[in-house]
Amino acid sequence: MDAPDPLLPAALPSAARGWTALRDPNRYGIWRHRPALGLSADIPEISLGEGDTPIVPLKRWGSAHGVRRVLAKLEYVSPTGSFKDRGAAAVIAVLAGAGVTSVVEDSSGNAGAAMAAYAARAGLRARIFVPESAPAAKRDQIAGYGAEVVAVAGSREDVATAAEHAAHAPDVAYASHARHPAFVEGTKTFGLEIAAALADDPPLHIVLPVGNGGLLLGAFKAYGELAAAGYQVSLPRLHAAQTSACAPLAAAFAAGADAPLPVQAQPTVAGGVAVGRPARGAEVLVAIRASGGSTVQIDDDTARRTRADLSRLEGVDLEYTSAVGFAAAASLRASGVIESADRVLIAATGIGLKDAGV
Amino acid sequence: MDAPDPLLPAALPSAARGWTALRDPNRYGIWRHRPALGLSADIPEISLGEGDTPIVPLKRWGSAHGVRRVLAKLEYVSPTGSFKDRGAAAVIAVLAGAGVTSVVEDSSGNAGAAMAAYAARAGLRARIFVPESAPAAKRDQIAGYGAEVVAVAGSREDVATAAEHAAHAPDVAYASHARHPAFVEGTKTFGLEIAAALADDPPLHIVLPVGNGGLLLGAFKAYGELAAAGYQVSLPRLHAAQTSACAPLAAAFAAGADAPLPVQAQPTVAGGVAVGRPARGAEVLVAIRASGGSTVQIDDDTARRTRADLSRLEGVDLEYTSAVGFAAAASLRASGVIESADRVLIAATGIGLKDAGV
Repeated sequence: MDAPDPLLPAALPSAARGWTALRDPNRYGIWRHRPALGLSADIPEISLGEGDTPIVPLKRWGSAHGVRRVLAKLEYVSPTGSFKDRGAAAVIAVLAGAGVTSVVEDSSGNAGAAMAAYAARAGLRARIFVPESAPAAKRDQIAGYGAEVVAVAGSREDVATAAEHAAHAPDVAYASHARHPAFVEGTKTFGLEIAAALADDPPLHIVLPVGNGGLLLGAFKAYGELAAAGYQVSLPRLHAAQTSACAPLAAAFAAGADAPLPVQAQPTVAGGVAVGRPARGAEVLVAIRASGGSTVQIDDDTARRTRADLSRLEGVDLEYTSAVGFAAAASLRASGVIESADRVLIAATGIGLKDAGV
Repeated sequence: MDAPDPLLPAALPSAARGWTALRDPNRYGIWRHRPALGLSADIPEISLGEGDTPIVPLKRWGSAHGVRRVLAKLEYVSPTGSFKDRGAAAVIAVLAGAGVTSVVEDSSGNAGAAMAAYAARAGLRARIFVPESAPAAKRDQIAGYGAEVVAVAGSREDVATAAEHAAHAPDVAYASHARHPAFVEGTKTFGLEIAAALADDPPLHIVLPVGNGGLLLGAFKAYGELAAAGYQVSLPRLHAAQTSACAPLAAAFAAGADAPLPVQAQPTVAGGVAVGRPARGAEVLVAIRASGGSTVQIDDDTARRTRADLSRLEGVDLEYTSAVGFAAAASLRASGVIESADRVLIAATGIGLKDAGV
């Protein structure tokens, strides 16, 4: 019989008691961290209840891989089913506060759905540009929020360019999850929540799937700002999991390069991390290196097996993109980067239901 | 521009301050209410982070229907995407504590997925009995958690009977969401959370989709126990939303009957509430009447339109079953049961992703 699971404490551990300047104990979700988000007072709070995601121990899966203290932060327990909600809420809030009436974004995946949902929540029009190849189910999810779905022929970069061009009109803004700075202000709350909840026994490693790197940059920024504000925190080692079908950051990391290397993306089940030219890739590489982290490439077979293992052993249903993060943690344990007694936190970024039928 | 949304406060409002005997402020999710759940000390806490769901105001949708103070409790922001996680966690915990090694359940929907996930989490074998007509996507979701899916010919009752028979074996238990008493102990936390979070300005109405009525019974029990323990709470009027394709409780309520009336279920998009013979129907009718509530029947066209409205106006993506609850609230406003200034809370029970392709 398992012992009771130590879940995320609602009250802060002693080491985080002094943080009330950055974290309102009377609030819920990302907006409890408003004082830390650097948004001016006139920006409205657009919310669907994102943030404050559960942290659960994975004893059975961890034990199968020789890691005793694995935690998953279930980012998919979120309004649209992925961590993108944190960033989308912040981006849409900033744009709504600026008087924008219409936004454009390019993504057929989690970011497109999140941005469409939060635009609806704020009463903004949204046009979401997607590759012509985007599956009907993903287009339907975005269109369900009342957004206009615009299919674009050509490469992923052509889709982004089309979105950027469409933003050159009055009262329209480019709500880019890859580029808008407020997106990382939102994902910063992921790091702030971890730092607060696990203050008394912080993770040595955070492993997360990386495409554009919005979540990794958020975690890095959170710890950097906490340290700069004088709080005693220890930056975890940030490990970026990529798919071997498209690994410009892993290639750059291995080569000692400062910017993502050009890659020819192959088809993959882990579409959420198949980003050939991450807009803020150089920053992501800085964050990985500064934290003493690393990069890992995971193939589709391993992602499929890992997804199945997490479902069967723990009841945690991941999309394949998220399974890449867990597979990377297992790989880092196998290679000795993670030791058996290390506390490891893995971001479960997207819900398995998103991949139904993949 | 909308004013900042008043979200669920993490700290309790003043009216709920004395409740710490029933609610541990240092915990997260349903298990913070363990002292109120009446489970013996040897029962383990099985958890995937269920409970503590967000409560968000719906200004735009409410205003379209002439209700100024509508709140949605987003039960779909939950590990498997529905409120069933609250009950499944409690049932599986009790069975794991009793030394059971294998469970059976009958449901092709949210309850089947939830019970399979929590069984996996606890390391129990699960067999889930489903109607032969259950869609492949729903079977796949259940099987993904390592559960055995058993298709049964005949009526919905035949499926339940097959599950019940299979439980007549050593170390096997019938983890029935419709019948196991611990299920309502789990869903009771829905009511406890509302009573605590909204103590200073409680809802006059709670509207929720009702098939077996597990969530409605949980809310009723929560308020009854709080009152019996001496806390000052006011039971909201509990309104049961059913699909007109299968409304045994609405028919009984209208006829003044004490038990569900027999119905011939028709096909519907709101499969989650299409329960022809709710096992605890008589108790549900008592709860509705004792609270001054009512029943409403919603047709599929209205459910579809309501789902689309919630997505487009608020960014809230419901499964059709949940849209039935929102449509019922609008109908109760139109008929004058709900008045424009009443505070209304509607349970958003299941995530729209579950109905992709319906």
